[in-house]
Amino acid sequence: MNVVLLGSGNVATHFGKALVGAGHRVVQVFSRNLAHASLLAEALNADAIDHVSGIDTKSDIYIIAVKDDAIEEVALQLPAFLKGIVVHTAGSMDIHVFATRFQKYGVVYPVQTFSKSKTIDFSTIPIAVEASDDRVYTELEALTSGLSQCVFPCSSVQRLSLHVAAVFACNFTNHLYAVASDILQRHHLAFDLIRPLILETAEKVMDHEPRDVQTGPAIRRDESTIRKHLALLVSEPDLSELYASLSDRLRGDK
Amino acid sequence: MNVVLLGSGNVATHFGKALVGAGHRVVQVFSRNLAHASLLAEALNADAIDHVSGIDTKSDIYIIAVKDDAIEEVALQLPAFLKGIVVHTAGSMDIHVFATRFQKYGVVYPVQTFSKSKTIDFSTIPIAVEASDDRVYTELEALTSGLSQCVFPCSSVQRLSLHVAAVFACNFTNHLYAVASDILQRHHLAFDLIRPLILETAEKVMDHEPRDVQTGPAIRRDESTIRKHLALLVSEPDLSELYASLSDRLRGDK
Repeated sequence: MNVVLLGSGNVATHFGKALVGAGHRVVQVFSRNLAHASLLAEALNADAIDHVSGIDTKSDIYIIAVKDDAIEEVALQLPAFLKGIVVHTAGSMDIHVFATRFQKYGVVYPVQTFSKSKTIDFSTIPIAVEASDDRVYTELEALTSGLSQCVFPCSSVQRLSLHVAAVFACNFTNHLYAVASDILQRHHLAFDLIRPLILETAEKVMDHEPRDVQTGPAIRRDESTIRKHLALLVSEPDLSELYASLSDRLRGDK
Repeated sequence: MNVVLLGSGNVATHFGKALVGAGHRVVQVFSRNLAHASLLAEALNADAIDHVSGIDTKSDIYIIAVKDDAIEEVALQLPAFLKGIVVHTAGSMDIHVFATRFQKYGVVYPVQTFSKSKTIDFSTIPIAVEASDDRVYTELEALTSGLSQCVFPCSSVQRLSLHVAAVFACNFTNHLYAVASDILQRHHLAFDLIRPLILETAEKVMDHEPRDVQTGPAIRRDESTIRKHLALLVSEPDLSELYASLSDRLRGDK
């Protein structure tokens, strides 16, 4: 397939590389910042453009992988008579954002966190697919199945819930790592000391349900330990509040 | 060294196996429940006892790996004239719990979460060591260095802070996994869909500081997405409150 990538960030980069790796041709990379477009275009052997007006109108698929609040704007600049499928890659943007503008459209949402510094095996990333109709779904499924082993149909509401779940399991979890790092630093201890624990905690739920492997003072109602922990955090009311409220939730769990 | 293990839970089990693997001899396993003591004793080629009165008084070290609120009770039952070192393995119990009772005492706290169903390479587990004096420290360091590559001195206050950090990075993190699992289930989506994300989130901080790799709507002040997420959670006030308060913390981070 011939693909136009709109965007040059982490998602566009990982998608582009996976597409090229699967034998597709990335024709163009668009970014408002030409330097960014050029950098990715070069890696994908594509042309770089910084104006949507110069877009190739004969491609099979247009992947809009820009920030959520720019998706509609980019879509509005695309010619309405496009024959190809227009998709975005966002978790929390309804498919209907494209409804009045294109005939064939959809969403391909990769459930993963991307960073420039770390490569990921794209084939292991679950891809949520939604399409304007069954034929478009079949086309999108064929394309994404060549990139990932886990492609599944997903409505806009389901995708939103998936994104919310991802915020808890990834963004908020990473914040708890940061909180732990702060506490250690304050007591002159290295973050290295809990890295094995963090990895083990994640690995444990790879083949267990999180509730079945819950540990810690709150779940076993060890109030004496909880009191000691709250006493340690007493000079940081926001942290002790977070500790108390998460412990309350855990006490309620069992 | 000859070792007596007091306790038969996860920590006692993992310690016992590591000790035997390193060539030490576990003489006895104590548990108030003889069946539990026997099960572990058999695995370690040791004797099982269910009364502290029958304890071998000539061992080199007594490892008390019982629940926090039972440590003092078990210690009080041990003969006061013991020549060996008495240690506990708890994160939040001060070393002074042993001060009036024994001459040589200390703490060996493994910074890891243990479960019966999953084996762990003990050599990668950081072990916090505290001792009643320098000579005892040297003995405990010699023993634990044979089990783990990462043994470090750690005061009782530091150990408490390490335990609090571990609660955030492990227990609370696992709870967020459970919250994510609930959200997915409610929308008929499998937890499998975010397992790669959970693993990647943990792996990312193995060689990065958590704050440097923070992602998500809150850190980039994507208020439109946050509103959609809160709307999805509107029927669950406690969850939307948790979402809002963690997002507030993240907004404050940058």
